[in-house]
Amino acid sequence: MHPNLSLQQIVQQLGGSISGNPDTQISRVGSLALAQAGAIAFFNDAKYKVQLTSTAAGAVIIRPEHADLTSLPKIITDNPYAYFAKVSQLLNPVYATPNGIHASAVIEASANVPASCRIGAHVVIEHHVTFGNNVTIGSGCVIERNSSIADNTILEANVTIKHGTQIGKNCHFFSGCVIGNDGFGYAEEANHGKKHWVKIPQVGRVVIHDFVDIGANTTIDRGAIDDTVIEEGVKLDNLIQIAHNCRIGAHTVIAGCVGIAGSAVIGKHCKIGGAAMILGHLTIADEVTISPGSMIMRSIHKAGTYTALMPSQAHEDWLKTAANIRHLSPHLSQLTDKIKALEQMVAILAADKKT
Amino acid sequence: MHPNLSLQQIVQQLGGSISGNPDTQISRVGSLALAQAGAIAFFNDAKYKVQLTSTAAGAVIIRPEHADLTSLPKIITDNPYAYFAKVSQLLNPVYATPNGIHASAVIEASANVPASCRIGAHVVIEHHVTFGNNVTIGSGCVIERNSSIADNTILEANVTIKHGTQIGKNCHFFSGCVIGNDGFGYAEEANHGKKHWVKIPQVGRVVIHDFVDIGANTTIDRGAIDDTVIEEGVKLDNLIQIAHNCRIGAHTVIAGCVGIAGSAVIGKHCKIGGAAMILGHLTIADEVTISPGSMIMRSIHKAGTYTALMPSQAHEDWLKTAANIRHLSPHLSQLTDKIKALEQMVAILAADKKT
Amino acid sequence: MHPNLSLQQIVQQLGGSISGNPDTQISRVGSLALAQAGAIAFFNDAKYKVQLTSTAAGAVIIRPEHADLTSLPKIITDNPYAYFAKVSQLLNPVYATPNGIHASAVIEASANVPASCRIGAHVVIEHHVTFGNNVTIGSGCVIERNSSIADNTILEANVTIKHGTQIGKNCHFFSGCVIGNDGFGYAEEANHGKKHWVKIPQVGRVVIHDFVDIGANTTIDRGAIDDTVIEEGVKLDNLIQIAHNCRIGAHTVIAGCVGIAGSAVIGKHCKIGGAAMILGHLTIADEVTISPGSMIMRSIHKAGTYTALMPSQAHEDWLKTAANIRHLSPHLSQLTDKIKALEQMVAILAADKKT
Repeated sequence: MHPNLSLQQIVQQLGGSISGNPDTQISRVGSLALAQAGAIAFFNDAKYKVQLTSTAAGAVIIRPEHADLTSLPKIITDNPYAYFAKVSQLLNPVYATPNGIHASAVIEASANVPASCRIGAHVVIEHHVTFGNNVTIGSGCVIERNSSIADNTILEANVTIKHGTQIGKNCHFFSGCVIGNDGFGYAEEANHGKKHWVKIPQVGRVVIHDFVDIGANTTIDRGAIDDTVIEEGVKLDNLIQIAHNCRIGAHTVIAGCVGIAGSAVIGKHCKIGGAAMILGHLTIADEVTISPGSMIMRSIHKAGTYTALMPSQAHEDWLKTAANIRHLSPHLSQLTDKIKALEQMVAILAADKKT
Repeated sequence: MHPNLSLQQIVQQLGGSISGNPDTQISRVGSLALAQAGAIAFFNDAKYKVQLTSTAAGAVIIRPEHADLTSLPKIITDNPYAYFAKVSQLLNPVYATPNGIHASAVIEASANVPASCRIGAHVVIEHHVTFGNNVTIGSGCVIERNSSIADNTILEANVTIKHGTQIGKNCHFFSGCVIGNDGFGYAEEANHGKKHWVKIPQVGRVVIHDFVDIGANTTIDRGAIDDTVIEEGVKLDNLIQIAHNCRIGAHTVIAGCVGIAGSAVIGKHCKIGGAAMILGHLTIADEVTISPGSMIMRSIHKAGTYTALMPSQAHEDWLKTAANIRHLSPHLSQLTDKIKALEQMVAILAADKKT
Repeated sequence: MHPNLSLQQIVQQLGGSISGNPDTQISRVGSLALAQAGAIAFFNDAKYKVQLTSTAAGAVIIRPEHADLTSLPKIITDNPYAYFAKVSQLLNPVYATPNGIHASAVIEASANVPASCRIGAHVVIEHHVTFGNNVTIGSGCVIERNSSIADNTILEANVTIKHGTQIGKNCHFFSGCVIGNDGFGYAEEANHGKKHWVKIPQVGRVVIHDFVDIGANTTIDRGAIDDTVIEEGVKLDNLIQIAHNCRIGAHTVIAGCVGIAGSAVIGKHCKIGGAAMILGHLTIADEVTISPGSMIMRSIHKAGTYTALMPSQAHEDWLKTAANIRHLSPHLSQLTDKIKALEQMVAILAADKKT
């Protein structure tokens, strides 16, 4: 089923130069360690030299400065990993969902669904929804009223798009994600001394630009008053929560299990590690990297890498560490006081000596 | 589409007093910073004075003590934020889902669905389910056998309610949430030295009282033996996990990505910050605030705010901090020992001097 | 509806010995604290002696060494908790979903669905899917092309299985989980100085062995090139993220809200606490326990318990702790330097004294 390509054919499409037999046939991609015959792998980091030496791959994608490290047929390029991604795209074309609208789909008459779209089984498309060309909607998706989805965007099965959501071109949304859900906004009120919460209607939208990917079971809330905005080229992993009124800058990538609280503004080209958390109303500059698991409580105004993590320890060691941390303030104060007292005593003794 | 209201009409419905022209027309809500003409905003905190001065809003909701800070038409009230929430509810009435039962819904004959309910496309309602009046079930929801849902409760699209769940009045459940899933209970057993896990049937239910909101993709597990209970007025954000046999006290709010382990009992009017975690079998008192990202490992018996967070740092600084924390116990012991030795030496020297 | 069993009937099926009246009738399970008449509870831990004394249970499952602690009818066994689990299974048989294929299910002609399977409403089963005997698929599930599910496996409502996923026998998948989603893999590329992300096709599969349970809204990504593998007897709770190319060892249990990054290899019989996070490309040995909320950043080569947690404090105390941690490196250096200076001074003074 997969296409078979020669190195020559690959280079004609993707650029780069060949060293070795240009007719070497490639049928799949592989990692250096596990590649089989007919596979092409990539080498990007000198620390994997041993794997390069022993690989069973049929060819390698490699930087010019590493080209001498192997006698295998190779494609030479400055960015082997990105090149590998594109070879893999050639060898693994996107599965073509059957054309047309499944008979079980429920589509309101006022929705605009061009003939080039593919609509899966049990889909629901509400009134005044508009699609661009070549949109794919997986089985079980619900697209609520007044939403729009532009050309070539793919929704995998069981995605929920809430009313009024705007989605750009060439996006890819994965199963179980919920886009445009009400933000979490309540005002506390006391009635005769009894406190309860009054819901603040969430009347903004979610606006998603082009080339955005959104992972499985990720949730993005609509704005309270203004919109929540996900800029071009953003890539979100699974189980991420983006709260109301956030803005995620272009080409930022966010790994799984991250939470971003309301009205946070994240810069462009940021990298946010898995399970990191960013508090509300913060601003994060462009090109910031947040380490996995780190809670960010203050705005970050300068590019760089930021971390907030407890180091892990054997549990018995951690028990001592935790006790020390709990008493760090009094402990450090006490040590400091004792040293000060000693310094005074020693100064007196030294002065006595001189006299 | 939105209703247009004068300040006079608003005050007639919600109370408070007017200062300025009572015929000022309001068509929407806005924030001070971004409000447009015709919008009403609120002012609740003196630190936003600059925004109050420059706002383009047509009117402001404000406390009596702040009323002099602006010459705009205003509504004066003690709780501007809650008042704002109610004005927004007036201006943004809940969307009226079309009446009736969609032809594609699958409803068992033994289910009791009053004519006042709205049932979306591709919904599944199993046997012996009972609904109150005016219940709304979004497209793609599955309501399993023997569940009940009381008056005016709304389920957004693609919600899953497991068998036997009891849901109160005026609740609002968001897309992708799963209520009444089996709790995570297994007993370890060894067979001829080989260990494996034996599932403990989860035979309790989830019982949810009135006015409870549950966010997108949040999960609440049924009790192992007894019930999991969510009391009146609780508001849960997205991607929260509530394990079996928990009890969440009335009017407690829980932000996104929080996990609460089995049999934890949370008090009333608590506020639990995003991504906080609460271990199992703990008790949290009423009126406790947990800071975001904080892991709570012990019961909390007194109202107040509790925190457990590593401060974030530039990564290079954190590397040093982490190394210090890892060696905190021996390091502090060593410093303490050296100070003790110095104290003894200095005491001897001082004694010698006196002699 | 529940079966009624005597202690004698239970012991005939599950082993163990009886002390007291073997005709004692049992209709349900209960905890010591809340059990009602007719219930059987278990006693496993001497610290619950008070509850054993006051329980209203009709019988107790207990270890030989604790048997004298109660005069209630009892079943004596070495592992009361596992025995209790099995009694509960006898008393709470799995609900028998109605046989057959619901008329609203959409099943491709090339799919192989034996007559012994149960297929709920609005299910979608794509082409070349194969099921074993006695498979149960809850309402709203989507099973994509080329997947296979072996005998007796149960999918609860609204589960999504992506193409090519292999699932073993006797598994239990809970609502909202997404299995076989694309992994999160992108290569960064600059075009005329503009950086963007190129998707790496995810061409591996998810392979799940027998007796695996997967919680609600949990996500397991397909491998990038090779497969993601979940071994026999693994139990996963809700809202867990397992990234591409992970391998989870047999009989490992993982609690809710855990994230495991790409290519991590977890050993057998591990226990991973709720909201713990494990970074990518790490190896965790067999029989390792990770405490809840702990971020693991290095491989663990030895069985044992590992922890990485900030202790929680009243917020005011934490503010001081956080300030101290932030300045821990300079603070400790300064104290160390001062002590060194004092030691030198005291040495000089002591030397002087001797002369």
